[in-house]
Amino acid sequence: MPKIVIKSDKTKEPYNEEKVKNSLKRINLSDEEINQILSLVNSKLPEVVTTKKLFAFIFQLLKARKEHLAYKFNLKSAIFRLGPSGYPFEKFIAHLFKEYGFEAKHNLFLKGKCLIYEIDVYLKNHSEIFIGECKFHNQKGRKNDVKVVLYSYARFLDIKENPQLKEEEKKILKPLVVTNTRFTSEAIDFSECYSIKLIAWNYPPENSLVTLIERKKYYPLTIFDFLNNKILNSLFQYDIVSLGDFLNKESNFLKKVSNLDLREIEEIKEKIRLILGE
Amino acid sequence: MPKIVIKSDKTKEPYNEEKVKNSLKRINLSDEEINQILSLVNSKLPEVVTTKKLFAFIFQLLKARKEHLAYKFNLKSAIFRLGPSGYPFEKFIAHLFKEYGFEAKHNLFLKGKCLIYEIDVYLKNHSEIFIGECKFHNQKGRKNDVKVVLYSYARFLDIKENPQLKEEEKKILKPLVVTNTRFTSEAIDFSECYSIKLIAWNYPPENSLVTLIERKKYYPLTIFDFLNNKILNSLFQYDIVSLGDFLNKESNFLKKVSNLDLREIEEIKEKIRLILGE
Repeated sequence: MPKIVIKSDKTKEPYNEEKVKNSLKRINLSDEEINQILSLVNSKLPEVVTTKKLFAFIFQLLKARKEHLAYKFNLKSAIFRLGPSGYPFEKFIAHLFKEYGFEAKHNLFLKGKCLIYEIDVYLKNHSEIFIGECKFHNQKGRKNDVKVVLYSYARFLDIKENPQLKEEEKKILKPLVVTNTRFTSEAIDFSECYSIKLIAWNYPPENSLVTLIERKKYYPLTIFDFLNNKILNSLFQYDIVSLGDFLNKESNFLKKVSNLDLREIEEIKEKIRLILGE
Repeated sequence: MPKIVIKSDKTKEPYNEEKVKNSLKRINLSDEEINQILSLVNSKLPEVVTTKKLFAFIFQLLKARKEHLAYKFNLKSAIFRLGPSGYPFEKFIAHLFKEYGFEAKHNLFLKGKCLIYEIDVYLKNHSEIFIGECKFHNQKGRKNDVKVVLYSYARFLDIKENPQLKEEEKKILKPLVVTNTRFTSEAIDFSECYSIKLIAWNYPPENSLVTLIERKKYYPLTIFDFLNNKILNSLFQYDIVSLGDFLNKESNFLKKVSNLDLREIEEIKEKIRLILGE
């Protein structure tokens, strides 16, 4: 029965059943199914276990019982696969915010009073414009310290000082920092103090990255652990990133742009229908 | 005869005799002596040469001819020896600014409106207070990009917003970033625009780090390549950092706190007198 969990940053903490429960609730598992999994975790895993091992154990259990839910459970790792070597994180974030009605651009240049800056994401709707910095980490447990927020804020202030900026735009311009991992408490304190919007994997609870993805079911194709990087990159080149993107494309087109055959494509579409239909 | 120079960051540039001339002028070598060295460089070194090799060649020539000037020529490398493993750079900077009449503190905590920050150096005189960030690099050729200046600036702005700060202090509070290497042109442009004081090895020309050191002859003991790290660290522990510090201490005290014998100490003091007497 697990008592101590070793996290990816090598720190240890007591095993917290509540955390596992919540991550299983997120994927809409019933209470009964959750309890079954928890008791298997208790009976099969040793006293000291890594989070990696714990995750892999539950993932395999889910795969054998409710495969489509296993993939949803795989979301955190899936985001790590969007890294520099795959589909850039900032592009994913821009696409995600389009789902929320934003006009979204990524990797564009914006003028400040003093300098021109390359901005990761630029999100605009009728009431808000976000100047966003995206901090992608491919190691779990990497926290973003206050420096990231500080430099993003100074850049934002300079952009706001651009005399060419329209007054109505200036009023709704806001700084944003998004990450796939976490922020230090200092980074959060500074951001609250200066109204800087932060989005991290689990922060803020009601609008965290995982919540934003879940709410629109904007799952990246990287949740499918059986799709290799070559196939994913081929699809990404055609901006086929989310399950919805894949489902909405003609199977023959998908065949042409990936190395998948038609049978595999239909199987994937079936899995997607199950996940999105949940 | 050198035509191409390979720098420490692996980039190449045409050999520039003027640069070598200037670095020899800095140490007060006569025009005749400079010309002798330049012609030896031309006759003995190959067409493609690393800056490291070029420096070592001149250093050896100087050592054989005017040993005390060789050590002054060694200043840039000496600063690299003040790094994290030796005498911290921020402590050296604080001591240097004391020579300029500043009340100087290093590694202290300052309150802002939103956070408490650890500040590398705090320099105060009757007309200016600098909140300083020190960026030490132990690799030559490492440039400091605009992000360093941006986060230092945001932090400075927050400290300035601290309601407990006295009005007269607020008026003379200024941001400062010091490095032993260089800044990117973006970092310099941003700093000029927002009146952030930058000090780098060669920047700004009239008040660069090398000029500030030369003007007060505040040479660190690390210019002596024959002093090993163990000896240096022993001396540093007693805040004996500069040639002046060493010269002003009793030889018996120096013997006690280092592994040097009295003969060695007297020899070093003699070298110091030559350098400071120049």
